[in-house]
Amino acid sequence: MGEKLKQFRELCGEIHDLKIAAAVLHWDQQVNMPPGGAPARAQQVATLNQLGHGMLISEKFGAALEAAGEEVASLDPDSDDTRMVKRTLRDYKIAVKVPNEWVREFGLTTTLAFQNWHEARAASSFKDFAEMLEKIVNLRRQYSEFFAPYDHVYDPQLDFFEPGMKTAEVKAVFEKLRPQQVALVHDIVERGKPVDDAILHQKFSEKKQWDFGEEVVAKIGYDFERGRQDKAAHPFTISFHPHDVRITTRVNPQFLPTAFFGTMHEAGHAMYEQGVDVSLARTALAEGTSYGVHESQSRLFENLIGRSKPFLKAYYPKLQKAFSKQIGSVSLDDFYRAINKVEPSYIRVEADEATYNLHIMLRFDLETALIKGDLAVVDLPDAWNQKIEEYLGLEPPDDANGVLQDVHWSGGYLGYFPTYSLGNLMASQLWEKIEEDMPDIDAQIEKKKFGDLLAWLRENVHRHGAKFYPQELLKRVTGSELDPEPYMRYLRRKYSEIYAL
Amino acid sequence: MGEKLKQFRELCGEIHDLKIAAAVLHWDQQVNMPPGGAPARAQQVATLNQLGHGMLISEKFGAALEAAGEEVASLDPDSDDTRMVKRTLRDYKIAVKVPNEWVREFGLTTTLAFQNWHEARAASSFKDFAEMLEKIVNLRRQYSEFFAPYDHVYDPQLDFFEPGMKTAEVKAVFEKLRPQQVALVHDIVERGKPVDDAILHQKFSEKKQWDFGEEVVAKIGYDFERGRQDKAAHPFTISFHPHDVRITTRVNPQFLPTAFFGTMHEAGHAMYEQGVDVSLARTALAEGTSYGVHESQSRLFENLIGRSKPFLKAYYPKLQKAFSKQIGSVSLDDFYRAINKVEPSYIRVEADEATYNLHIMLRFDLETALIKGDLAVVDLPDAWNQKIEEYLGLEPPDDANGVLQDVHWSGGYLGYFPTYSLGNLMASQLWEKIEEDMPDIDAQIEKKKFGDLLAWLRENVHRHGAKFYPQELLKRVTGSELDPEPYMRYLRRKYSEIYAL
Repeated sequence: MGEKLKQFRELCGEIHDLKIAAAVLHWDQQVNMPPGGAPARAQQVATLNQLGHGMLISEKFGAALEAAGEEVASLDPDSDDTRMVKRTLRDYKIAVKVPNEWVREFGLTTTLAFQNWHEARAASSFKDFAEMLEKIVNLRRQYSEFFAPYDHVYDPQLDFFEPGMKTAEVKAVFEKLRPQQVALVHDIVERGKPVDDAILHQKFSEKKQWDFGEEVVAKIGYDFERGRQDKAAHPFTISFHPHDVRITTRVNPQFLPTAFFGTMHEAGHAMYEQGVDVSLARTALAEGTSYGVHESQSRLFENLIGRSKPFLKAYYPKLQKAFSKQIGSVSLDDFYRAINKVEPSYIRVEADEATYNLHIMLRFDLETALIKGDLAVVDLPDAWNQKIEEYLGLEPPDDANGVLQDVHWSGGYLGYFPTYSLGNLMASQLWEKIEEDMPDIDAQIEKKKFGDLLAWLRENVHRHGAKFYPQELLKRVTGSELDPEPYMRYLRRKYSEIYAL
Repeated sequence: MGEKLKQFRELCGEIHDLKIAAAVLHWDQQVNMPPGGAPARAQQVATLNQLGHGMLISEKFGAALEAAGEEVASLDPDSDDTRMVKRTLRDYKIAVKVPNEWVREFGLTTTLAFQNWHEARAASSFKDFAEMLEKIVNLRRQYSEFFAPYDHVYDPQLDFFEPGMKTAEVKAVFEKLRPQQVALVHDIVERGKPVDDAILHQKFSEKKQWDFGEEVVAKIGYDFERGRQDKAAHPFTISFHPHDVRITTRVNPQFLPTAFFGTMHEAGHAMYEQGVDVSLARTALAEGTSYGVHESQSRLFENLIGRSKPFLKAYYPKLQKAFSKQIGSVSLDDFYRAINKVEPSYIRVEADEATYNLHIMLRFDLETALIKGDLAVVDLPDAWNQKIEEYLGLEPPDDANGVLQDVHWSGGYLGYFPTYSLGNLMASQLWEKIEEDMPDIDAQIEKKKFGDLLAWLRENVHRHGAKFYPQELLKRVTGSELDPEPYMRYLRRKYSEIYAL
């Protein structure tokens, strides 16, 4: 490595260290911190972020980036170094285009908005939140303007979470997906053989739930020597280095799926981060490449594996043993049907695989309309209710169960929701490729053999970290662009059987 | 507050935030971090320290400090702001006098030395560690030279941990203390009525030990709403803000005193930090004023209270109930004697109150001689063995149980050991003042009433944080200089009764 590249990597390393320090402080706040620590913690995190941002947009860093760019120009365009410079350039461009005053005002607004949203949701009153949301939408629109010209004003929102992704692409994919998914849900509701999931709503020992989840994810490949699991009210995965990737989980003593599928989901995220090549550590490539690709890994383990028959054949007997009183006499088939029950509902986070994307498409439609100015904030509740009727045949009883249910907008996260669906779609695309490369994958899972699967994911996805943009990675691995058909094939096959369609 | 002072405080706040972020990373490493995380963590901490140091010695900070100094010149010299500027000036002077190259080499050397010491101790071979220790002593001597002129070359070592303290003062105090303490131990060993502590060496449930300790320290005043307790191999207390002060404890399932007195000790440290006035947060005054004063608080709760009869009258019945099989039939008097058994031993961390200071004085003698050049590193083991024979009448079986037992020197911590003894002495000085101000303190403790005591400590010690230098604080509270007589009075009274001298 040349001297300039070396110096550049050292600067990147320092910026990365600050980012990770802030991440440790965040983890600690969610998992350990006594409540009294919050105000001081906010200041500590603000200082770390401000210093890191200052270092990134400094002349010194800009010059080092330029020098590194010249040095990698002669290298293989797919080399780690070239890609690292390219990805850092992206972060740099975003950082320098967004003025400090905007960052300060956005931070201040979203801090207040979170509290405001919390109270408005408790009162189930959208009008109490409307003014603040208007402010946020305006700020986000300003944000888009910093990146003009753009194809669509929503593009910069989306690009922040899903580098390189365009609004038009998401729109095209969703337009293919929506009618099929609406029709499937309609079929299930209208003529499916009913599924009863009462067996999942019983009292289940928290400790046994915890232990079972830990045993399973350790077996499928989450390495506890390089990680740990803690309890948190809002579960998340966080990486400080591929050798220190932590998951958190919530346990519901009255509903079995919450903890277990939550743990599987977070372990999917965590194996991605544990699999990043350590040579990429302390660079902009030292993490998963996008929210969408990340979600493909979590959903793959939570749903495509966790809610599958082969997986139940492997682990259901053990689960029955742990909870013999509750499910000792429940057949594997009945349990399989119960954990895959489809039921249109108001609440996104409780949605099943068949309805989940509809919740996302609704939010995508509304977000793009808000940012474009086609929808006024004041008209949002009506638009929401109309969409949910159209997509799910439901009428929300109130704002708390409708337009106010999610925290994201209060935090200014526009452009985030679509990545949940992109993850679902990519998971199925990857899975079809896995089935092609490992025709006996179901048999392996039944035998609790996950080594080949993990090796495949490591080789094709994990080790690259953020080296390839999400669409490029998908194309390299599957040979295809983003495509909703594999997901629809998966849903149709699965639910045709369960609901005898 | 004037504008310049305000700007200065903001800069101090940012430096403080970095220091606290590093502290959170340290706590996490000791308590939670999976082993794989260590190398990345070292880099993160190094980056935070380097940035904080860079900010402290920057021209910008120097100018702000000077401007703030001019502004406080017109204020009451005892105002918080004046003292804050003064204390920050001290930190600044230390930081600017020590060259970056020295800091780097010292950091590198001690990192290697820790590993080296660890192996040398395992092999019980001082000669394997001698070369590295020589390097460390030379570096520490260089450190002293940065602060020339000095009265004694050891002064800058000591001053780092105990601001304002001089080698000559410690020497004078130790010279009064040593003969008395040697004589007392001699008396106990030669003609004391033997004490049997076999009852403490039984199997004690770890959970019950933990719960008992938590209940007691919550009652004496450690606020779990602004703190938490976790397990750690090497217990410590750490403060991120007066509202987030955490303790750690080690539990020995075969020896009852370890966990309980450890928890009392750490809670003593922690109540000091929880008691610092929040208006001092994010400044150089936002922590205890010195290692010695800190140790006075921990020893006060661990020993003067925890190992006292009034305290046992309050809590022994509850302890007996928790461990009825082990100590249900042991009288309070026998238990009191057992936890106060005196036995000269090789190992400092296992030493009782009567012998502890002798271990420290030995180390102080050797450290000053090493730094002054009166003792060569190669001659250290002989000097050690000679001293321990002289002070405790013992001959260490090997280096591991002698000169190699402590980690401190491998970390470059010369000047640290004396603060343990200073803490013991100050605890007794404070206690005599407490008895004067609260003549019924024993009766209060017997009734589990700790509110007045905590209020006294808050008012006189805790709330000031680092506002006053240790000797100044001691003088303000007790009216006296550092004085070994209260400690000797305490020891004589206590052990004359226990050992029927």
